[in-house]
Amino acid sequence: MDSGFAAYGRAPEMTWKSFRNRLNQMESSWSLHPQLAADTVPVGDLALSRVLLANDANYPWLILVPRRAGLTEIIDLSDSHRLELMDEIADAARALKGITECDKLNIAALGNQVSQLHVHVIARRHGDKAWPKPVWGVAPPSPYNSTARDGLIGALRRALQIAPVRD
Amino acid sequence: MDSGFAAYGRAPEMTWKSFRNRLNQMESSWSLHPQLAADTVPVGDLALSRVLLANDANYPWLILVPRRAGLTEIIDLSDSHRLELMDEIADAARALKGITECDKLNIAALGNQVSQLHVHVIARRHGDKAWPKPVWGVAPPSPYNSTARDGLIGALRRALQIAPVRD
Repeated sequence: MDSGFAAYGRAPEMTWKSFRNRLNQMESSWSLHPQLAADTVPVGDLALSRVLLANDANYPWLILVPRRAGLTEIIDLSDSHRLELMDEIADAARALKGITECDKLNIAALGNQVSQLHVHVIARRHGDKAWPKPVWGVAPPSPYNSTARDGLIGALRRALQIAPVRD
Repeated sequence: MDSGFAAYGRAPEMTWKSFRNRLNQMESSWSLHPQLAADTVPVGDLALSRVLLANDANYPWLILVPRRAGLTEIIDLSDSHRLELMDEIADAARALKGITECDKLNIAALGNQVSQLHVHVIARRHGDKAWPKPVWGVAPPSPYNSTARDGLIGALRRALQIAPVRD
């Protein structure tokens, strides 16, 4: 009689395939929250997270959204995805700081109004519209003109070595 | 004639000692920012971070401060310390959520007013004084009474398996 253990040992490629299928399913059932889509412009996809630029020229402001369905909190991520997210936060923060030469970075996962897990990475300047307060709720968003927006997105894609989102 | 390379190979224990000394020096030259000390009660030390409880009964609110001198940004941490910090953020968040049964976690590294790197881990409830806004600047801090404070700190120490700060 086959034991489960023996079966596990006999067909590793099936196990691997079903594991990969499950991963793909989790990614394919993910979709960006409509509020995040409305407030941002897509920059590109890192290994785990979609990188968005908030359409608010008051502050250079990225939002990272892990492309996995059903996440609300950082503690909902698996251990390995949580560490991957930290690496991607650091990459995004370094890119944003390098491009903007900002005075301070603000990094936050709040999600009180949009529950889909997303992380803000914001470049702050002494004297920006909210300084030294947090940015939320202080000034109405000031949409980019297309030249400024495309220039910033191009610089971010080069710094993060990511291509435009294709879906 | 000795080359630097040969000398390096000959006395590894000296190299290791000076490396450890440098690490200890970095930790021993760290001290908690006086503003953070004034606004909080110490809970205990995780491997990297001091855990503080904000003395504000409006929201159960932890602050994690990596005990390394001269840090302002998350990207100032070494790669390994940054991942260790993410683990400690997750541990603190799980403990706080388990104890408070909160509706949402808010996690943020801002540092616009106190530059020493610190991470807020805040338990939010639908209907708390700031909900759904971020907590900063909304309600004046409401200090704990000693029974509530000691009860919460005791529960946090048990959940995080940490002892009182000894310095």
